[in-house]
Amino acid sequence: MPTLNDLDTPALTVDLDVMEANLARLQNYCNAHGLGLRPHIKTHKIPALAHKQLALGAVGIACQKLGEAEVMADAGITDILIPYNLVGQRKLERLAVLTRRARLTVAVDSAEVARPMAEHLAGEGVEAGAVIELTSELNRCGVTDTRTAAALAREIAGGRGLRFRGVMVYPSSAKSMPLVSETLAALRAEGLAAEMVSGGGSPTAYRSHEFPGLTEIRVGTYIFNDWSYVRDGVCTLEQCALKVITTVVSTPAPERAIIDGGSKTFSSDMGVPMGHVIEYPPAVIYKMNEEHGFVDVSKCPRKPKVGERLTVIPNHACGMMNMHDEVYGIRGDTIEAVWKVAARGRVK
Amino acid sequence: MPTLNDLDTPALTVDLDVMEANLARLQNYCNAHGLGLRPHIKTHKIPALAHKQLALGAVGIACQKLGEAEVMADAGITDILIPYNLVGQRKLERLAVLTRRARLTVAVDSAEVARPMAEHLAGEGVEAGAVIELTSELNRCGVTDTRTAAALAREIAGGRGLRFRGVMVYPSSAKSMPLVSETLAALRAEGLAAEMVSGGGSPTAYRSHEFPGLTEIRVGTYIFNDWSYVRDGVCTLEQCALKVITTVVSTPAPERAIIDGGSKTFSSDMGVPMGHVIEYPPAVIYKMNEEHGFVDVSKCPRKPKVGERLTVIPNHACGMMNMHDEVYGIRGDTIEAVWKVAARGRVK
Repeated sequence: MPTLNDLDTPALTVDLDVMEANLARLQNYCNAHGLGLRPHIKTHKIPALAHKQLALGAVGIACQKLGEAEVMADAGITDILIPYNLVGQRKLERLAVLTRRARLTVAVDSAEVARPMAEHLAGEGVEAGAVIELTSELNRCGVTDTRTAAALAREIAGGRGLRFRGVMVYPSSAKSMPLVSETLAALRAEGLAAEMVSGGGSPTAYRSHEFPGLTEIRVGTYIFNDWSYVRDGVCTLEQCALKVITTVVSTPAPERAIIDGGSKTFSSDMGVPMGHVIEYPPAVIYKMNEEHGFVDVSKCPRKPKVGERLTVIPNHACGMMNMHDEVYGIRGDTIEAVWKVAARGRVK
Repeated sequence: MPTLNDLDTPALTVDLDVMEANLARLQNYCNAHGLGLRPHIKTHKIPALAHKQLALGAVGIACQKLGEAEVMADAGITDILIPYNLVGQRKLERLAVLTRRARLTVAVDSAEVARPMAEHLAGEGVEAGAVIELTSELNRCGVTDTRTAAALAREIAGGRGLRFRGVMVYPSSAKSMPLVSETLAALRAEGLAAEMVSGGGSPTAYRSHEFPGLTEIRVGTYIFNDWSYVRDGVCTLEQCALKVITTVVSTPAPERAIIDGGSKTFSSDMGVPMGHVIEYPPAVIYKMNEEHGFVDVSKCPRKPKVGERLTVIPNHACGMMNMHDEVYGIRGDTIEAVWKVAARGRVK
């Protein structure tokens, strides 16, 4: 049976005990509060893990891209929310095809997005659910005022091709509450029922019961967690399931070790320090080139040697998974699973 | 015949006219100065492009990872330099196999790297060329003094499994000259001929003839160039061959447009601005989430609309290519080639 030590490096591994505890913890929380848990698969992009989340009680999944949704539908998953404006003729054609295989809900934040979509789907004789994206402190997409949101909801509800289902926001932080509440009130006043009020974001996940009217949360990173979450106090080091096995390839100066993983292994996301070395807590990953990780070991009483393996908790789970073709599921020292990151690179 | 407008977005395209001019320009420079051009395929990871570079006169290729070299050897490429310390039993086994298929040269910067490698290769009855990596202002890997370099060269030249070929440095900037020159003198004094003095880096490529003793340059980005090079004055905007076709999916505020490509399309490399929008030169890509690009259009007299396509020159060619499965070769509006990024994700 192959073990951790047999893996060539850099190797992306998932600690299965930690992952399973992460999954159960949030599902239990959602169950306790009558909230739907809709895992965002952009984090792992692996159908087997999506099925695991559904088996634990998830109400469906979220995919950030149509291409991810196609991969998940291929794997037999049937309730999919795409919280992203789908724009362009090819996307509408693909969406229409996908509605025949899965129960699709999409987000829209303008009539410019909703109209051609509704028209195309109606022309194909199919329908998708639609939620209206509301803006947040992120200042990304989203309708910025209640009146526009209600008008868009009215237009969708009065037409064909799209079925009005409610609203979404990201993140569902305290700052997002007023606009969501006001919009829900405005919709009620027009007799438009919001059966879905979808919030999102792992950092705020455990406060979702404080968000008035929320019916479900879209969360991705909670399955693995990462070093940026530890830094921000969202989780503990022990709750991090993604671990990258690297090898020290050079120790050219007493204060510096170079590992065989850089920005093409870890991504450049989330700044310095660029991950955490489990075996050398005082070590600091201070820079990455594409295939080199620069580790400052000046504060380590014992220094790592060439050939030694270092286990790194990565900065950003989602950015990292998107660069790897294969991930190893590990229990103790045993490789229990090898997963293909099937929806990796589906940027369209 | 499919055209640019038929491509779903985000789509990674290569302007073939620009790429071919970039390739010819540096090859002509190297020919004029009697320098070997060894393209670093980490940038494109596409065998067909490596073959194109060789057909133009390249002396061989460089691969940053053994896995990339395996892909290129599969494609029939036979002269490969890996300017990277290969460490670990599995890597040595793979290296031994690869030496039977291609003329391999590897870099080493310590006896801890060279000894197990030489022993393993000798045990398998095979041999690889070896160059000694010298340090540079990058403070990454590399031997830091002439005496250590000469001792390592002596050890390699006196043993089996590795054949001493010379030295390498990255980047081959003016600051790297003294250590390289002193090391070459020390080697000559010991009767050790350096047949290969390998420099690298696209930004310094056209000054390589000023570097005493250089026999070849390893360069990757020159094939495409990117926005970080334009910013740094290394190339012009017109010399950028990589172009990403994106779609505006939201214009939630007068000053903001959101495009359907973020850090999972472009990488987070090289900071802000995160690329350049050709159709709207005053626009600034000021932030990226995974699938959202945030564009400040406040300085644009005419604002982009939802559904409009924006062509973006990416910040970092190498980081970006590593996330894409497919790239389109474009001439004018015609798609002339669709390449699989075959060595993508080969981090091992």
